[in-house]
Parts: sequence; C-alpha cells; structure tokens
Amino acid sequence: MSHSPLIQKLVERLQVLPGVGPKSAQRMTYDLLQRNRPAGLQLAQALQESMEQVGNCQLCQNLSESPACPICTDQKRQTKTLCVVETPADVMAIEQTSSYFGVYFVLMGHLSPLDGIGPNDIGIPLLLERVEALQIQEVILATNSTPEGEATAFYITEQLQHRAIACSRIAHGIPIGGELEYLDSGTVSKALFARTVCTSN
Amino acid sequence: MSHSPLIQKLVERLQVLPGVGPKSAQRMTYDLLQRNRPAGLQLAQALQESMEQVGNCQLCQNLSESPACPICTDQKRQTKTLCVVETPADVMAIEQTSSYFGVYFVLMGHLSPLDGIGPNDIGIPLLLERVEALQIQEVILATNSTPEGEATAFYITEQLQHRAIACSRIAHGIPIGGELEYLDSGTVSKALFARTVCTSN
Repeated sequence: MSHSPLIQKLVERLQVLPGVGPKSAQRMTYDLLQRNRPAGLQLAQALQESMEQVGNCQLCQNLSESPACPICTDQKRQTKTLCVVETPADVMAIEQTSSYFGVYFVLMGHLSPLDGIGPNDIGIPLLLERVEALQIQEVILATNSTPEGEATAFYITEQLQHRAIACSRIAHGIPIGGELEYLDSGTVSKALFARTVCTSN
Repeated sequence: MSHSPLIQKLVERLQVLPGVGPKSAQRMTYDLLQRNRPAGLQLAQALQESMEQVGNCQLCQNLSESPACPICTDQKRQTKTLCVVETPADVMAIEQTSSYFGVYFVLMGHLSPLDGIGPNDIGIPLLLERVEALQIQEVILATNSTPEGEATAFYITEQLQHRAIACSRIAHGIPIGGELEYLDSGTVSKALFARTVCTSN
C-alpha cells in the first residue's frame, strides 16, 4: 500500500533535490500539506519561474535572469581585476568573504578532454574577449584544486601569457584552523613549498 | 552581494521545506538550474497539484485527493478492525510493516486542551460514526506514546466502552534490537510491567 497518487508523485519528484531521499521527501510532503500549503504554492511558482527564466549572463556566464548579471552591472565593482571560477556557487563563496571587489568569469565547468569538454565549451573565447574589453590588469585563477581545475588554470595562464596579462592563482596551503596532523600530505607539502618569510615588523 | 533576484527567491522559498537551510537550498537551486531543469518544472507542477487538490478522505480523514482514499476503497481490506493513528505518516509506518490488513482512522492531531484542540477538532464524532457504520469489532489505538497521545487514547477508550466495542492499545516495551542499558527507565519499567509468560512449547 502506498500514498494516494498525487502525494506519491510529489514524494517522488522531491527526490530530484540533492540530499533528499524517500524519508525526507515524505516528511516534506506531509509538512507542506498539513501545515503550509500557501508556502508550497509559492515554492512551486518560484521553481517554475527560475527554471523557465534563468539563463546566463552574457558577460560572465554566471546564472542570471537578465542579459547582464547584478555583479557585472554593479557600477561600484572594480573592473581591472577579473576572477575566474568554475561555478556560480564559487562566486557566492568568494562574495561571502567580502574581500574581493573585482568582477568574475564563471566557466560553468572545467576542461575535461575525456568528457569532450574543451576550451570553447567553458567559454574561453568569451573570457579572452572580456579581458580585452575591460582592459583587465590581473586575472585571478580560482578554479578548484583538483586535477581538472589545475589543468584549466594552466590552460588559461598559457592563453593570457600570449597576451601579456598578469595572472595569479589563489594560494594553497593549510586551511585556517586546520591541524597538520589531520591534513593530507599533498596539502602539507604544498604549504611547505609555498612558505612565506616571517618578519618582526 | 547576493544572488540574482529570481535565484534568491527560489533559495528562500526552498527553506520552507523541513530540514532545508540556506546552504542546502542554494545547493538545490544550482543543481536544478545547472543540471535538471525539466525535473525542476515537474516538481513545480507536482507541488502545485498537491497543494491545490489534496484534501481529506471523508471516511478516515487521511490526506487524499479523492473523497475516499485508496485504503478505504480497497475491497481487500478487512473492515472489522479499525486502527486509530495521529497522522498520515503513522499510516505509512504501519502499512510498511505489511502486518495490518484492517482500516484506519487518522485523527490529524491529538487532544490538546491547552491549544484548544478538543474531540470535535480531531474528528471523534466521525470516528464513532464510522465504528457504527462498519460494525467494527476491534479498535486498535495506535496514537503516540506521548502525554497527548495517551490522553487521546484514554478518551477514545471511554467513548467506545459506552458502546461496548473492544478496544486495544499497541504494546509498549523494549524496541527490537534495543539494549536495556541505553533505554529510559519509563520504557524499561513499562516492559517489566507488561511482561509475558514464557512457554517451552
């Protein structure tokens, strides 16, 4: 015996959400039906609008419902520095630090020759165009520290060196609060190699 | 700096789901937008249909989009035993045992005088009507083992005794796999009190 058909359908479809299994989907369904139907309807509407209307910013490729996203159109951003990241979530992670004021370019992925994802698929031509158009002085490569992220950063570095544009990679090392004992040797070795000089001033 | 407006709206509205905070709502939003928009649209549709069309079964009060739910209309169910539970989720929990074949009555709550919830609010008159109509022989009280659940069970027992109908309460004791050492003394004391005779046959 299972739920009545509409309820069953909702329980199944909630499971497309990452991290939601049958038990939590059932809990969500009953919670909305018993306690908060107006919120359920509003959620349905927000889902539909986003799925239908959100596209990509024509300047930085980030998800956006307008042709240019709020960051690219923000007059207060400093437009001489451009930070390259893999995903929209990475943009949010950097924005939350409140310590970067330049613009972004979102690759929406990384180079992955085995999956047939080449430079054109992650918008490298658009990135280079953007770098020229804004007369960018420094490109900060903030792709992930994975083999694909590193390869992507390396590829972009090469492209920019042909154009004589400064290029930097975000630092790798011991995370704040991290204990050496529990970190992998790759991280510790990188941290040793990239040590900085201590000064007493 | 936050998300673009539509994305922000979806992130906020996903947080009405129980167990979903800002981080998981953002993860869900990006996941749907980047990987599975058709599923997002289907979810929106399922949500809307359920919120608008699901009501209560006129016979057992369980959530159902038809006037009589699939269990109440199932010809194979044994209609001489009726199990009283607090919520639709409790029905599912009992159904999953595959060891009960009677019908249900769902209170959609419990007696709670402090919150102004009396017998009429949880459908006791409908329950008594249903017991008469089906000529129920046994009512199994499967309300929760909380003060409100116990009070509700006690109230129903009283009502049924006036009508001379057999009434039982689900057993309380040590859960299967449970270790005495880690159980609260209320449960252990109940298990001692409700001990059963061992036979070697």
